[in-house]
Amino acid sequence: MRVAVLGARGRMGTEAVKAVDGADDMELVAQLGRGDALEEIREAGATHVVDLSVPDATEDNVRFAVEHGIHAVVGATGWDAPRLSRLEELLAQRPETGVLIAPNFALGSVLATAFAAKAARYFESAEIIELHHPDKVDAPSGTAVRTAELMGQARRDAGVAPSPDATVKDPDGARGAVVEDIHVHAVRLRGLVAHQEVLLGSAGEQLTFRHDSFDRASFMPGVLLGLRTVASRPGLTHGLDSYLDLAL
Amino acid sequence: MRVAVLGARGRMGTEAVKAVDGADDMELVAQLGRGDALEEIREAGATHVVDLSVPDATEDNVRFAVEHGIHAVVGATGWDAPRLSRLEELLAQRPETGVLIAPNFALGSVLATAFAAKAARYFESAEIIELHHPDKVDAPSGTAVRTAELMGQARRDAGVAPSPDATVKDPDGARGAVVEDIHVHAVRLRGLVAHQEVLLGSAGEQLTFRHDSFDRASFMPGVLLGLRTVASRPGLTHGLDSYLDLAL
Amino acid sequence: MRVAVLGARGRMGTEAVKAVDGADDMELVAQLGRGDALEEIREAGATHVVDLSVPDATEDNVRFAVEHGIHAVVGATGWDAPRLSRLEELLAQRPETGVLIAPNFALGSVLATAFAAKAARYFESAEIIELHHPDKVDAPSGTAVRTAELMGQARRDAGVAPSPDATVKDPDGARGAVVEDIHVHAVRLRGLVAHQEVLLGSAGEQLTFRHDSFDRASFMPGVLLGLRTVASRPGLTHGLDSYLDLAL
Amino acid sequence: MRVAVLGARGRMGTEAVKAVDGADDMELVAQLGRGDALEEIREAGATHVVDLSVPDATEDNVRFAVEHGIHAVVGATGWDAPRLSRLEELLAQRPETGVLIAPNFALGSVLATAFAAKAARYFESAEIIELHHPDKVDAPSGTAVRTAELMGQARRDAGVAPSPDATVKDPDGARGAVVEDIHVHAVRLRGLVAHQEVLLGSAGEQLTFRHDSFDRASFMPGVLLGLRTVASRPGLTHGLDSYLDLAL
Repeated sequence: MRVAVLGARGRMGTEAVKAVDGADDMELVAQLGRGDALEEIREAGATHVVDLSVPDATEDNVRFAVEHGIHAVVGATGWDAPRLSRLEELLAQRPETGVLIAPNFALGSVLATAFAAKAARYFESAEIIELHHPDKVDAPSGTAVRTAELMGQARRDAGVAPSPDATVKDPDGARGAVVEDIHVHAVRLRGLVAHQEVLLGSAGEQLTFRHDSFDRASFMPGVLLGLRTVASRPGLTHGLDSYLDLAL
Repeated sequence: MRVAVLGARGRMGTEAVKAVDGADDMELVAQLGRGDALEEIREAGATHVVDLSVPDATEDNVRFAVEHGIHAVVGATGWDAPRLSRLEELLAQRPETGVLIAPNFALGSVLATAFAAKAARYFESAEIIELHHPDKVDAPSGTAVRTAELMGQARRDAGVAPSPDATVKDPDGARGAVVEDIHVHAVRLRGLVAHQEVLLGSAGEQLTFRHDSFDRASFMPGVLLGLRTVASRPGLTHGLDSYLDLAL
Repeated sequence: MRVAVLGARGRMGTEAVKAVDGADDMELVAQLGRGDALEEIREAGATHVVDLSVPDATEDNVRFAVEHGIHAVVGATGWDAPRLSRLEELLAQRPETGVLIAPNFALGSVLATAFAAKAARYFESAEIIELHHPDKVDAPSGTAVRTAELMGQARRDAGVAPSPDATVKDPDGARGAVVEDIHVHAVRLRGLVAHQEVLLGSAGEQLTFRHDSFDRASFMPGVLLGLRTVASRPGLTHGLDSYLDLAL
Repeated sequence: MRVAVLGARGRMGTEAVKAVDGADDMELVAQLGRGDALEEIREAGATHVVDLSVPDATEDNVRFAVEHGIHAVVGATGWDAPRLSRLEELLAQRPETGVLIAPNFALGSVLATAFAAKAARYFESAEIIELHHPDKVDAPSGTAVRTAELMGQARRDAGVAPSPDATVKDPDGARGAVVEDIHVHAVRLRGLVAHQEVLLGSAGEQLTFRHDSFDRASFMPGVLLGLRTVASRPGLTHGLDSYLDLAL
């Protein structure tokens, strides 16, 4: 596996360069940043790219890879519906090439979300607490909203009633936001990075999933798993969870 | 120590009867409920009473005890300013008699609140999460509000700035209630009883206090501690924390 | 669904009687204890039995049910290999009848164990902390051992190395027991009932599953789920997890 | 306040240089490393030093400071009884100069230990779980041992019985180490840094203190608090807790 890292001088890219370089089964053959010629990828004989560039660059990067039969693992954002549609057309002409577009490479977070969605229907009550550093500008976090949507959907599909709540007096909004019938609470605390708890309760028992992201290094096992798997999954795949063996 | 339990047929009273009966250094000499004559207390030779009756009855109960030189540990609610003032006048005439009025007998909860108030000034960020059964009608809990007030006061007294918070977008109120500059979050989950977490954070570290009340039995060590201490603290005492050796 | 409860006067049986009685889609038609004639089950027209009796009685109870085409949900212990073998022979003659034998009816515990086994291979480190009341005579708990076995097996099957551990000096055994390469720690604390945490860690992230059993009521949703499912799963089934939709 | 940092090129020293430089009420006037002449401290007009050097150097560093009437905050290790005794003799000749020797500058850790020692006597059961990165060579951690010693001492002084424990079967040592009658458990998990939980339990309730150290930055508020306080505490002080207002 000969890997080129695109967006190699950004924060995620720097970590990816280290991770690929340290993996016994991979050879780091190119590191490209803004302004570098994509032709370098081909010249270096890359069989895989990791694209951690910016929204402006990622479509050109991935198209170049696919056109040359190079598998791509993509963490860059900006893949809206028209872009995805154009990529799928291109992949139809290169049916042996695989592309993974993953909004989240932290295995723990991907697993916690999948398990929460699966377990939510078996409990009477479900809530989410997300905890982040105090420099975050939005609340609740995108991951919490996504988790609530999946849990809420699973509960509705199974005919589970909304979580019981006798609250009649909450003048200051202590019960938090409600997303898909799931209460979501956002804590902002200096010292934290990115953390999430899913709380499920029934009479006499509680089940809790907690995920802690302490630093960016946590994304690298997911990036390497993506690289090791993408060639065996031709076509377009969304989300790292598709590569995990989660059947229980 | 000869103890009479007042309000002995209520839920707290029933537990107190068991606890006093099981204590090696106490003799249970009377159990009074609604309608029983207070004279029974004196006839039984009680040296102490535990009053766990209702707001309508508690003032008469405690006055009867003090008038007969019997020490009183009081968990009943309803002690507003006029009642307290009348009680203090009466105690001035019986200077050797002790009365403890305690809104909370759970030692763990009393300790957690005291520690949270003490530690709050040493951290950049402070938030509270309270978690209760879903049949609770008010949010946040009274204990959480009281804890936030004590923490906020301590931070202001020490000149600590409000917790940093860059949130600019929180359309659904995920950041919870704000009490004395402390964000307070209320979770309602089937299976829980009464729980509280105080979260304190600074760069690189977090300190968390968590208290769990699993059932009413948790109040009994506090009741027994009150009984064992009240005779040595003549006059009126507010709050069980006054009896704890908390100087560090 | 017409349900008879066997072992109805034991602690679990008492809860089951209440749970079946309270379920809209079930009719409680018989409650049998030690010494009652099994014939009562048939006379009451039961379509299902819940057997929460003792090891001495359970085999006769279940055989009686199967012989009469009555589905059985079994929480009683004592089902060793010869008994299971005899039961399977009997079921071969009654292919339309279903039997569920479940060592654990707490849905949260069953789910936590299944998820832990599934996730263990994706992390560098894995440990277990189980926490129980101090009257428990064995350590670690059977659930912790079973969880460690499943996690260890999954890690070996995936070729994952044992969790890293540089400890060279641990004179008093603080690192706990080692079960299938997984360190297992047992806490005994007054106030607790039965709790378990599975901790998974990789560079920069942690994933934690925690299950709390606060009281026996937590088993009843699992018993009801068993009753509602057993008729559609003829033959012998082991473990409630087989009835949960856990494919992710 | 004019501050010189000694041991300025080490890991802690580098952080201290940044912290002093960033404090509005302090001026960073000198940074000394191995081989630099102590005379620089005096030439720079320092009123305070922070000594984060090595055991070989710290005694000379601190003596130089005290001889010149410069207050010292010391995080370096190696202060055995003879060294401390010599320092106290010297301070007797410079009664206006203050020295703080602190083994731990993390405020949260210092507070958690103090609170644990204070609360331990009020609960029937007490245990400690410490959690660290897997490259740590000793178990349990020094902080856990110190916490257990303080808790055990406090419980014995108050006449509290050892925590109840009915365990009769624990073939693999899951109950962990026992330090001063307190069970101590050590978890080693990739992704973690340094964390500790103190668990206190009585019938119906639990009180938990948790401290998380995520990185070395967590020591700096303690270093700055030491610098701001040391001049008002002439003579030798041991432990940062002496500077905290912990009376409750």
